[in-house]
Amino acid sequence: MKILLTVAYDGTAYCGWQRQMNGVSVQQVLEDALREILQAPDLTVTGASRTDAGVHALGQRAAFSVAEMKIPVKKICRVLNGRLPADISVRAASEVSEDFNPRFAAKRKTYRYSIFNQEHGNPLLTRYSWHVTYPLDVPAMREAASHLEGTHDFAAFRAAGGSAKTTERTIFSLTVIERESEPASQPGLIDLTVTGDGFLYNMVRIIAGTLVYVGAGKISAKEMPGIILSGNRARAGITAPPHGLTLMEVCCTANG
Amino acid sequence: MKILLTVAYDGTAYCGWQRQMNGVSVQQVLEDALREILQAPDLTVTGASRTDAGVHALGQRAAFSVAEMKIPVKKICRVLNGRLPADISVRAASEVSEDFNPRFAAKRKTYRYSIFNQEHGNPLLTRYSWHVTYPLDVPAMREAASHLEGTHDFAAFRAAGGSAKTTERTIFSLTVIERESEPASQPGLIDLTVTGDGFLYNMVRIIAGTLVYVGAGKISAKEMPGIILSGNRARAGITAPPHGLTLMEVCCTANG
Repeated sequence: MKILLTVAYDGTAYCGWQRQMNGVSVQQVLEDALREILQAPDLTVTGASRTDAGVHALGQRAAFSVAEMKIPVKKICRVLNGRLPADISVRAASEVSEDFNPRFAAKRKTYRYSIFNQEHGNPLLTRYSWHVTYPLDVPAMREAASHLEGTHDFAAFRAAGGSAKTTERTIFSLTVIERESEPASQPGLIDLTVTGDGFLYNMVRIIAGTLVYVGAGKISAKEMPGIILSGNRARAGITAPPHGLTLMEVCCTANG
Repeated sequence: MKILLTVAYDGTAYCGWQRQMNGVSVQQVLEDALREILQAPDLTVTGASRTDAGVHALGQRAAFSVAEMKIPVKKICRVLNGRLPADISVRAASEVSEDFNPRFAAKRKTYRYSIFNQEHGNPLLTRYSWHVTYPLDVPAMREAASHLEGTHDFAAFRAAGGSAKTTERTIFSLTVIERESEPASQPGLIDLTVTGDGFLYNMVRIIAGTLVYVGAGKISAKEMPGIILSGNRARAGITAPPHGLTLMEVCCTANG
């Protein structure tokens, strides 16, 4: 029997989604809880996205197979959440076919990158946004973002170390929305929300860093097509820090 | 020279605002930073509100006197924030008269109490909201809240240990607003926002706990006038946990 979970986590304390030798990962904590609850010592969990250290998720998807399901599927969330730490929560569970693999079934992913753009920090947003102290030109960022929408070779927006065979990806939408942040009536929270068919290694964080460079006037919005065409990582902006990034949603084919 | 600061903090790591022997307080961290920056070893800070352990603030006010101000007032935020940890931030500074005391000058305070009302937790809201897993009747909570507005004897909503001479207070407004929480389109974040001329010890948290009891059907909204009149703490609801509470704003007379 194969089960698909929707998983949320605060990534601050973890070395990322993927199990690693040197650090506690979300996958490991989730697997350990499932192994104990289901008495299945060999159980493994496959995630749709390998989020990096410090990256958060509200809509990660993860699947596992188990020979015998000792708990009804509709109770698995409650039992799991009773065992998991407060920074990991399983929000939904459903049965999928045995051949379902969330990595390959994922057809659309949405990430949000949050930027807190006031001179002085907001401690209630520190964990979940990048604090940029100099003022950003939001319309310019929006214009630059529009150039990234569509199907492109995103080699200029890929960190070294990725294993993808092709660097062509499609961004269905990339919005730049300024929200009021508290204390009320002060602007200053800028959300970049990007939906695509998949993302290269660090691609969303490099897009965020590049849009911040545009907002700061270091790169002009008009340069974006040339930067994309160049395929040259050095022409894009910096890699924004991980804690501003949240995996919002993964849409899977069929069973997902 | 006397300076009034607007201070924001994530209260998770602190034993509250007030300096204490057994734990690190926000006041202590702020005083230590100011003493060092201004080379004033005896400097003390007076806060407008003594927030409890675990309670957050976006708009705490705090004042200090110093014989000689070694840094221009308009630079004090930046210098302080360079020294303070990420969970404390000074957002504004201005000069006030020497006789200004933020505790007595505070004429209106606004607190927000946030309740996350979905069955399964949201790790990105865990630090800043009370997770109530059973469904709450928000219109009933709103009706109950309306009975608390106005000038009343709030003895039924005061924890033992308060030092206030009178238990009469005025609540100018108490709103119950349901917000969408993420993942998008799911309701479930309930904000109680209360503005009053002052609050008794634990009063906002007891109001929040009582409104949750109303939302759960344990107390009827119609009982609220009787509970207020009784002055009996045992008839109100539980004291809601501190981490859902944030001091949003303190309005001071004159100089504030």
